[in-house]
Amino acid sequence: MKKQAVFFGELLMRLATKRHERFVQAREFDVGYTGAEANAAVSLANYGVDCTMVSRVPDTEIGQACVNHLRGFGLNTDHITRGGRRLGTLFLETGASQRPSAVIYDRTGSAFSELQVGDIDWDNIFPGKDWFHFCGTAPALGDNLADVVSEACRCAREHGLTVSCDLNYRSKLWTPEEARPVMTGLMEHVDVLIGNPHHADVMLGITPGGKGEDDATDCADVAAQLHATFGCRYVAMTMREDISASETTLSALLQDGETSHAGTSYTIRHIVDRVGAGDAFAGALTYGLLSGMSPQETIEFATAAACLKHSVPGDFNLVSLDEVLALARNRNHAGIRR
Amino acid sequence: MKKQAVFFGELLMRLATKRHERFVQAREFDVGYTGAEANAAVSLANYGVDCTMVSRVPDTEIGQACVNHLRGFGLNTDHITRGGRRLGTLFLETGASQRPSAVIYDRTGSAFSELQVGDIDWDNIFPGKDWFHFCGTAPALGDNLADVVSEACRCAREHGLTVSCDLNYRSKLWTPEEARPVMTGLMEHVDVLIGNPHHADVMLGITPGGKGEDDATDCADVAAQLHATFGCRYVAMTMREDISASETTLSALLQDGETSHAGTSYTIRHIVDRVGAGDAFAGALTYGLLSGMSPQETIEFATAAACLKHSVPGDFNLVSLDEVLALARNRNHAGIRR
Amino acid sequence: MKKQAVFFGELLMRLATKRHERFVQAREFDVGYTGAEANAAVSLANYGVDCTMVSRVPDTEIGQACVNHLRGFGLNTDHITRGGRRLGTLFLETGASQRPSAVIYDRTGSAFSELQVGDIDWDNIFPGKDWFHFCGTAPALGDNLADVVSEACRCAREHGLTVSCDLNYRSKLWTPEEARPVMTGLMEHVDVLIGNPHHADVMLGITPGGKGEDDATDCADVAAQLHATFGCRYVAMTMREDISASETTLSALLQDGETSHAGTSYTIRHIVDRVGAGDAFAGALTYGLLSGMSPQETIEFATAAACLKHSVPGDFNLVSLDEVLALARNRNHAGIRR
Amino acid sequence: MKKQAVFFGELLMRLATKRHERFVQAREFDVGYTGAEANAAVSLANYGVDCTMVSRVPDTEIGQACVNHLRGFGLNTDHITRGGRRLGTLFLETGASQRPSAVIYDRTGSAFSELQVGDIDWDNIFPGKDWFHFCGTAPALGDNLADVVSEACRCAREHGLTVSCDLNYRSKLWTPEEARPVMTGLMEHVDVLIGNPHHADVMLGITPGGKGEDDATDCADVAAQLHATFGCRYVAMTMREDISASETTLSALLQDGETSHAGTSYTIRHIVDRVGAGDAFAGALTYGLLSGMSPQETIEFATAAACLKHSVPGDFNLVSLDEVLALARNRNHAGIRR
Amino acid sequence: MKKQAVFFGELLMRLATKRHERFVQAREFDVGYTGAEANAAVSLANYGVDCTMVSRVPDTEIGQACVNHLRGFGLNTDHITRGGRRLGTLFLETGASQRPSAVIYDRTGSAFSELQVGDIDWDNIFPGKDWFHFCGTAPALGDNLADVVSEACRCAREHGLTVSCDLNYRSKLWTPEEARPVMTGLMEHVDVLIGNPHHADVMLGITPGGKGEDDATDCADVAAQLHATFGCRYVAMTMREDISASETTLSALLQDGETSHAGTSYTIRHIVDRVGAGDAFAGALTYGLLSGMSPQETIEFATAAACLKHSVPGDFNLVSLDEVLALARNRNHAGIRR
Amino acid sequence: MKKQAVFFGELLMRLATKRHERFVQAREFDVGYTGAEANAAVSLANYGVDCTMVSRVPDTEIGQACVNHLRGFGLNTDHITRGGRRLGTLFLETGASQRPSAVIYDRTGSAFSELQVGDIDWDNIFPGKDWFHFCGTAPALGDNLADVVSEACRCAREHGLTVSCDLNYRSKLWTPEEARPVMTGLMEHVDVLIGNPHHADVMLGITPGGKGEDDATDCADVAAQLHATFGCRYVAMTMREDISASETTLSALLQDGETSHAGTSYTIRHIVDRVGAGDAFAGALTYGLLSGMSPQETIEFATAAACLKHSVPGDFNLVSLDEVLALARNRNHAGIRR
Repeated sequence: MKKQAVFFGELLMRLATKRHERFVQAREFDVGYTGAEANAAVSLANYGVDCTMVSRVPDTEIGQACVNHLRGFGLNTDHITRGGRRLGTLFLETGASQRPSAVIYDRTGSAFSELQVGDIDWDNIFPGKDWFHFCGTAPALGDNLADVVSEACRCAREHGLTVSCDLNYRSKLWTPEEARPVMTGLMEHVDVLIGNPHHADVMLGITPGGKGEDDATDCADVAAQLHATFGCRYVAMTMREDISASETTLSALLQDGETSHAGTSYTIRHIVDRVGAGDAFAGALTYGLLSGMSPQETIEFATAAACLKHSVPGDFNLVSLDEVLALARNRNHAGIRR
Repeated sequence: MKKQAVFFGELLMRLATKRHERFVQAREFDVGYTGAEANAAVSLANYGVDCTMVSRVPDTEIGQACVNHLRGFGLNTDHITRGGRRLGTLFLETGASQRPSAVIYDRTGSAFSELQVGDIDWDNIFPGKDWFHFCGTAPALGDNLADVVSEACRCAREHGLTVSCDLNYRSKLWTPEEARPVMTGLMEHVDVLIGNPHHADVMLGITPGGKGEDDATDCADVAAQLHATFGCRYVAMTMREDISASETTLSALLQDGETSHAGTSYTIRHIVDRVGAGDAFAGALTYGLLSGMSPQETIEFATAAACLKHSVPGDFNLVSLDEVLALARNRNHAGIRR
Repeated sequence: MKKQAVFFGELLMRLATKRHERFVQAREFDVGYTGAEANAAVSLANYGVDCTMVSRVPDTEIGQACVNHLRGFGLNTDHITRGGRRLGTLFLETGASQRPSAVIYDRTGSAFSELQVGDIDWDNIFPGKDWFHFCGTAPALGDNLADVVSEACRCAREHGLTVSCDLNYRSKLWTPEEARPVMTGLMEHVDVLIGNPHHADVMLGITPGGKGEDDATDCADVAAQLHATFGCRYVAMTMREDISASETTLSALLQDGETSHAGTSYTIRHIVDRVGAGDAFAGALTYGLLSGMSPQETIEFATAAACLKHSVPGDFNLVSLDEVLALARNRNHAGIRR
Repeated sequence: MKKQAVFFGELLMRLATKRHERFVQAREFDVGYTGAEANAAVSLANYGVDCTMVSRVPDTEIGQACVNHLRGFGLNTDHITRGGRRLGTLFLETGASQRPSAVIYDRTGSAFSELQVGDIDWDNIFPGKDWFHFCGTAPALGDNLADVVSEACRCAREHGLTVSCDLNYRSKLWTPEEARPVMTGLMEHVDVLIGNPHHADVMLGITPGGKGEDDATDCADVAAQLHATFGCRYVAMTMREDISASETTLSALLQDGETSHAGTSYTIRHIVDRVGAGDAFAGALTYGLLSGMSPQETIEFATAAACLKHSVPGDFNLVSLDEVLALARNRNHAGIRR
Repeated sequence: MKKQAVFFGELLMRLATKRHERFVQAREFDVGYTGAEANAAVSLANYGVDCTMVSRVPDTEIGQACVNHLRGFGLNTDHITRGGRRLGTLFLETGASQRPSAVIYDRTGSAFSELQVGDIDWDNIFPGKDWFHFCGTAPALGDNLADVVSEACRCAREHGLTVSCDLNYRSKLWTPEEARPVMTGLMEHVDVLIGNPHHADVMLGITPGGKGEDDATDCADVAAQLHATFGCRYVAMTMREDISASETTLSALLQDGETSHAGTSYTIRHIVDRVGAGDAFAGALTYGLLSGMSPQETIEFATAAACLKHSVPGDFNLVSLDEVLALARNRNHAGIRR
Repeated sequence: MKKQAVFFGELLMRLATKRHERFVQAREFDVGYTGAEANAAVSLANYGVDCTMVSRVPDTEIGQACVNHLRGFGLNTDHITRGGRRLGTLFLETGASQRPSAVIYDRTGSAFSELQVGDIDWDNIFPGKDWFHFCGTAPALGDNLADVVSEACRCAREHGLTVSCDLNYRSKLWTPEEARPVMTGLMEHVDVLIGNPHHADVMLGITPGGKGEDDATDCADVAAQLHATFGCRYVAMTMREDISASETTLSALLQDGETSHAGTSYTIRHIVDRVGAGDAFAGALTYGLLSGMSPQETIEFATAAACLKHSVPGDFNLVSLDEVLALARNRNHAGIRR
């Protein structure tokens, strides 16, 4: 029996300049559709899980284009409702070397940001499903959305779903002061918490207790605290060190209440597109836990998936189960696959 | 001494699908920046008039890209202020044959729509200028904008500028009931009125008095009524008959209080991009009157300019004075110019 | 309750040169996925019918890309099986004026062409469905495919589905001598027959009995003969006269056993892409009959849909129910839709 | 035994804006290589004749790119010498409807324009060849080039080749006063003269003697005079009437000393690229005469070829012998060729 | 006197995704034509050798496009015959960082794979030629091809040509068990053997005899064994270590029966396109031996050429003799060449 | 009060191949407009200085496109005169790894190269301005240009402007023997000298006096000598070590007569486009000195700007004051800016 997961979050049009062009140079944009939760969902769908996206888009051809885009990559879009005035937009300029990538958000007045408690028929969506995922970017959009997320979590738990949350702090959406009470309140529903030390600090007030000898130790400490404080079943943390806009290192760990399982650390030297790597991690982590991998296998799988995302243009991590496993299990070779 | 003109209106990002693609097919958009008044201004600048654009864009790289775009085509952008949250967007899908072109506006919460009386320092802008132009799309955005337009017109008249208005009715922005009082009120400031019979009807309540024998007669009648009712110095009217999305006929007349001067009627069989043809007409009409052409020369010049716009991709009518004159004076030949 | 339809046929990669380039000039191809039945299915899905595609593609990323493409445009792809060595390919060069468009088929050894009776579990597919559609291109691929089509039709009829067939003769696939016995044999299962006079002649041996005074009369005569000979409930015939590769006229009629209902004749002067117009007709005709339109409404709807296809790039007729109705009911206007 | 022809003329880089863009809009150019004589040569090569191009390009990678381009389309490039400082450039902006296409030449100081008598080893090139072709654009580049052309013609005649000349007057290269003595002097070598009435007038001083009742009669009269005055074996004249930049009519005649053979007149409604149509005519006319077609067959073949050129992007007429014959013999149908 | 070489092998259409896109994302493919032997031939032609390609393509415009492509890069295509149903296709997706490049072959039923002994008139091709080259991919296509290769080698030797073979093992074409007897049989004709240790093992059963201390020693040992076992005049071996899809190291050696000449080892950090590097090596090695370079010069030249291939998009190594020598002789500097 | 600067130099069309293609592969060129001085001017304009470009372009649409391009990026183009026959052209092929980038200049007979003393009305341009900048590429074009530069410098000094010169030696324009007397003569006008050790040697005959222990010491020595010899207020020197076409290190120093201020050394591992980095350095150095930064701040700012240029496609350094400061002051982080 195929596993089934539900994702809730905003959908955005993604307009990206080409070939490292700056915004003032652009005469063309690559057009795609994205959203932190949708990105994670597409990952999971690639691995064979039935994924349902819950969101709201305007009842225009732009809204339809967004739905078609997700549908093409295998998401169930039956619960994306129509209404509102516009789809939020994200402008992306891909950096290189010492010039960082830049994102400009244009979400004012989006269809999703107007959702109210009661608009989504959760009781119709959750039966038979196994997993519910959301990110911190949804409650960041306003009290109405925080309430909808809370409503969804409660209902998901009632129907026996596992609830996962990716912290995903965005300083342009809310301040730490605004974020903390909301996110702390939501923690009671969360089984699987995903984040990084910086987000844990600003959104949940958890800082490393140790002497800061090294990042990995601090990170493990934060994960252990999060586990203890909020009673989540699993806490997964990612760490990255950006050497330049083209080069980064990536590692992660999974705290299961007993042990802190550290994954392989990857150095990625030729980044094609790093946007969505965190979502790829979340999607793959979910897959590992849903499919019964061990914690160690799960964190290896999730880190390998996040690593591969850097090689795929666009926000979706379009890699197969076999490709992630090949890297995670070290059976990968860098030669041409032919 | 070079003539100088001032234009006030919203600026928008223009995202167009390529090669007649529908929105759901688009993986790329052509990116440009537009606005009815900016389009008219670029026309006028091409003919050698100093043109100053007054508007408001967000203080982001997107706003800067918009400013650079106008600046490249010769507009003075010193009076485009920065602020607000976003630049309005216009999505364009170019039709063909029996499928009409489609425009989706996404203007909610734009930087321009938030302007208030007093925000623009008109007394600093108008001295030494000859002409002020606006369109009905500006007051359509709200009472605040209607007030800003009124303030601008009053100030322009005080500084001795000629004021022109292109009616430009857009049913997605306001209803006839909303438009009429506002536009009627503005008419007292308007020296040169530009429109078409449909817009004169819905925005100013002027309908043809005759028996409707033919469109040209009706149109001339409406122009005469507008002239008489509002006391404008000139009333220019355009008429078009759309045979398909690829083919149209275009004609126009100019009422100067004494005579109705009719221009040549053009049949355009291979439309490249018809958006902006009305703005091209307004820009060229302004040029004719500013540069001292006779009414008949003016209407021929303006109609030829509008005709040529259909052959230029994008919203700007990138044709030179010589090219318009060549067509207007019938010295044009269709062979390769080499 | 949403209507549900099933389509069976080959899926192909579509590689098209850009901007009227000839094959020897091409350095890039536009990539899409097509198939006569899939094209019809996408039309029907656009109008709101649940459409299931039955086919076979190789178990490679190329096969997956094909599935994703269809899925994005709303088809149910759960019954597309995987196997075989390759996906057939269609190369397209779009003509202009006196140079006709050219198609090169490269179908040798395709995954679909290897299907055998028993490979498809029709009894699992048909329950609850309303309609089954196939084209003459499927049985043309060999005796094995003719047998699969026959098996499918029989099973469809047992489950109470209406069966439609679009003749779609392709001389590169089989000769009239090969086609006639096969197609004649299949006619016993067909409720709705779609074709044109030329195909009726070469595939079913039906020629106009009259004196050939004009094409419309001949066509109506052929439709009546087909109705009488094969006992179909409906026979729909299209007629086109190609003025050039850029210009064509299109008309159609529907024989319901009592009357020959003629639709509006359209002249299309600026063809963007005429491939798939026949499939658009079949999809729209199916919609009319499935949704309870009258025969006259149905033929008007189908002809308008086929007309609009000429304005859409690619093989899919990406137009909405409202857009087709607007043209069919003559409420269409050629101006910009904004 | 394959026929063999030699072509002499300048080669240019061709930089064209895309999709009807104006020069000030272009961020990309399509890059090709062209030349009136090379265009004719590629036509002839397409029909199966061995064609050798004689020219001069700079010894740079740009020069090599030009050579490769011609070589790919089948020309023998062994006699293209290397030297000089630059390759001439031609900028092309494709017009539409009432806006004519525009060409800007940038030939100053080109490698070809520096050729001197003695630079080309004609005695090594001509043995075994059947035909030599040049255009009026070569002698227009200066006395040195006029002398090289004269040297070539003389040598070609000594080796028994037929010599053809396409008048190709370009007012940006020389005045009628400059052109007449040069071209008149060259006429003694010319067996086959190709031109149009305007070029015959400005370059050779031949004007219609009749009362100008209609263009075709005038044209035939000019051809007859040219035949009589210069003693050419054949005189071919083309006539075109440009309705717009997108639409034209085309016809031609061939005077063989006895009769004026008129070809079919074509109306071309959707021009893709009309540059090179005259060269396509010259190439096809040469083929007809070289391959032993009758004068009537020849003029039909040449006119059909010139007509088809309007549908092919770029300067080369990339159509096959079969495609031209299909149109010339009226076996063409405008439907999809599949 | 120019040296002359003959190449025999399959030609394929090459369809590559752009900008690291995955197959499921591609809406466009870059189109080229390739083949291991053609790639080597283009290299050799760039260095000034006359190269004749012997192959078979379908008699369609796709086949012609392939021929034109090779012809443009300087190959003699007079001995490419026409026939069969299709041109084989290769789909390429360029990887990055930890994601390897992927190639999907679609060669079923290709024109080349149907060749039979006697189809090629070798006795007409070889006279006056100096060198004959083939790869292991040709005999891999079936017994008929193995026989044609054998026939060609025998005839080449009779006409005094040097015969070279690049092992080029492809596991998707045949198994080691199938390959060994065929390749071993062909070795008697081979003067110059090119390969790598892995291919030597699976195709010829030669494994390093030593203790595997390091790759270079093992490689030299394999080369010496191959030389001794099969009596080739030269054995060249390449070694690469793929650090990621974007980064690799490359080295090579040449065994001449006396000494193992090792070339410079290159680290390539920003791979543009690594497909064809082995063919570039083979082409350059052939050039070195044909042109009388010493073994050490030859291996340096060949390694430098293979290194440069990684910087050129497409399968052809479009670098000049001077460019390769500049790198091989260490006179290269990485600054802009201007 | 905004600072104001004047730049004098040639403007060129820039035609660049895409995606590392070689010239012989290019079917498209990216089109831009460039010039060493214009590049520096755009940098300065980005930082908020009013910049006036003085040059000469042909009076064609190509000349206008060049003017529009500069105008869009904020330059005052009122003093670009029109005339002459052509705009010089620069062809660019971007290298990778071991293949260096290649530039082909095509400047023969350009509009700018024909300028004569007296053509530019310097007395009308300089009043109120603060700075005048030129490069060694202008006097390299001929004695006439050397004289115009001398005239300009003299006039600039009379009007109290600071004069800066970037040596910019190009061996394709002149020999060291030609350059030395001209450049030495110009030094008397130069307040700020910019260059590198190689250019100081070939153009001014200054070589490191020391024992060449390391590059930085030698460079500082050369700067000190230049300062002493020519009495410039500031001498700035850049040093780069090109590891490959994709990777480089960059450092610089500023000699102010007292101290040699060394800036941060950057290693750039993923070069997008290195053309224009020197001009970016000159523009930023000018900004530092004009805006009152300390010498150390200035050299850090200029080096950071030059570093960032490597990440921006095209010749203009499209980075903001904030972006350069962020890198120069080490507040930069390589993560996504969102």
